[in-house]
Amino acid sequence: MQHIPSLQNLINELCKLPGIGVKTAQRLAYFILKNSSKNIPPLIQSLQNIKANVRLCSKCFDFTEQETICYTCSSPKRNPQSLCVVEDPSGIQKIESAGVYNGRYHVLHGSLSPLDGIGVDDLKIAELFKRIEQSLTTQLPITEIIFALDPDLEGDTSILYISKQLRNYPNVKITQLAHGVPVGGDIEYISYRTLAKALENRIDIS
Amino acid sequence: MQHIPSLQNLINELCKLPGIGVKTAQRLAYFILKNSSKNIPPLIQSLQNIKANVRLCSKCFDFTEQETICYTCSSPKRNPQSLCVVEDPSGIQKIESAGVYNGRYHVLHGSLSPLDGIGVDDLKIAELFKRIEQSLTTQLPITEIIFALDPDLEGDTSILYISKQLRNYPNVKITQLAHGVPVGGDIEYISYRTLAKALENRIDIS
Repeated sequence: MQHIPSLQNLINELCKLPGIGVKTAQRLAYFILKNSSKNIPPLIQSLQNIKANVRLCSKCFDFTEQETICYTCSSPKRNPQSLCVVEDPSGIQKIESAGVYNGRYHVLHGSLSPLDGIGVDDLKIAELFKRIEQSLTTQLPITEIIFALDPDLEGDTSILYISKQLRNYPNVKITQLAHGVPVGGDIEYISYRTLAKALENRIDIS
Repeated sequence: MQHIPSLQNLINELCKLPGIGVKTAQRLAYFILKNSSKNIPPLIQSLQNIKANVRLCSKCFDFTEQETICYTCSSPKRNPQSLCVVEDPSGIQKIESAGVYNGRYHVLHGSLSPLDGIGVDDLKIAELFKRIEQSLTTQLPITEIIFALDPDLEGDTSILYISKQLRNYPNVKITQLAHGVPVGGDIEYISYRTLAKALENRIDIS
């Protein structure tokens, strides 16, 4: 393989993808190479298309192929008064798959992480406040912000920072996803921190 | 995601790769898209290079970037009298990593599988015999054929078919990889068929 630089190069590129180790990359590269005229052109085409066509929605910063505003932001069926704040566009896809949310979204494109050098200006936080500000001048102002960030230190820091500033808007309700026992999960394998949260936020079913 | 056809298309293409399911493909596609200007051009470049530069060696049918004959076939350091027959180019890489073989290779590009419609003419079997035939006219004829095919029905069928024809060359020794207990393996977890082979081919250490 060291005598086939192009193959080694493809393996190196594939290794940069998340969850792809050297062995998987080798397997993928050999598969691609084995039937290169059938496998490579559509793969290149789809990569070129995605680079050329997909941009960020100017309102919620989700990925979109539409000119300026994405499908969710332009849909009259979605409630414009509720905003679900996510870290990444993949979060939107996940929440949509739950099929219970009918509001709109706002993608931060990361979460606050001073140790990694990710500060307020690196995220779409100013844009979030601009959006709230603008909605106040319309007939349907934003009334709820739902945080659906990763339940880790960076997510919690971001929620804390943003919600502190949101206090300037007393009519905006601030919520976050409930912590608790995953549906279908096994109590035995759940972390004590999750269990503590589940007990703390226990639901009255009497 | 259904509103972003380019993204869906990339996910579909990635799903065609071995071991990549829908969830992994989504994760990869979002990763690629997240930093598309940094991720996509080198990936496209490496795919284009591999398609343009890599061809099959005209002698052993391994992948190569050299004009006609690959590095192993043209190396004077490799013993031309021993041929290791493998199913795929990835097999060569695996055997090279063992670091004990110094002969040359022959890639069949598959194994006999009548159920899948893969017959003698679909593999580089005629080319193998042509190679043996040609070597007989040289000062260093091929004296050993080592089969390193997958230990499955198709591999065994291929070995049987080829070795039967090899009987026409009485000076060519025919061998195959030893079956037995994997080094570092646990006897408890080894299949009874492997264990039977390991007992049958037990090694005298007295």
